[in-house]
Amino acid sequence: MVNYQSSDLDRVFQALGDPTRRAILSRLEQEDRLSVSALAEPFAIKLPAVMKHLDVLGDAGLITRAKTGRVVEVRLAPDPLREANDWLARYQRFWSPALDRLAAYAEAREADTRKTEGGEP
Amino acid sequence: MVNYQSSDLDRVFQALGDPTRRAILSRLEQEDRLSVSALAEPFAIKLPAVMKHLDVLGDAGLITRAKTGRVVEVRLAPDPLREANDWLARYQRFWSPALDRLAAYAEAREADTRKTEGGEP
Repeated sequence: MVNYQSSDLDRVFQALGDPTRRAILSRLEQEDRLSVSALAEPFAIKLPAVMKHLDVLGDAGLITRAKTGRVVEVRLAPDPLREANDWLARYQRFWSPALDRLAAYAEAREADTRKTEGGEP
Repeated sequence: MVNYQSSDLDRVFQALGDPTRRAILSRLEQEDRLSVSALAEPFAIKLPAVMKHLDVLGDAGLITRAKTGRVVEVRLAPDPLREANDWLARYQRFWSPALDRLAAYAEAREADTRKTEGGEP
């Protein structure tokens, strides 16, 4: 039986499956923090719809929200993206043989350096 | 206005948001091709449910199916995973400063090698 329990990752990928939510994350990648109204501004949807997207992103652990007075500030929480990235990493060999070669090259040079320097750091 | 049209990527991330579908892709990463029944075998769900998952994966461009006689063979189509990976790549700086360092290291060693070898390949 294949073990296919992984509900955190489910929520992350599901959250990423929407263009508005990805656009929100992209803006939070560029700005350290944004108020909800600043985040909502570029979108052609109403604030409650943006709030729903923020709930989905929050449930997936992709953003944090902090309230100061009447302003809610939103920040990116990148760890779940790392999980998604890690899941995808095993497929990289299909399009990036160069990645393997770069790592192998760095290792080989490192070994050469150790040899010629007689074990010095 | 933020441009947030990207329906292919929507379908890819939505397809990845399910543990059974991710498990199917993982098996297809290890085996070049598998029949539908071989794919279905490890799962505690019925064949029609597996077929539905395959439809979702097919619609997202993540698998190809080819019928030979009565056997449908399924193969991984990794290109959409690359798109998903590319989307995630801009976030890598949050967890992988080492990636930048590896590239810088390889470049520096390459430059050293050219210097000591006097331009030889």
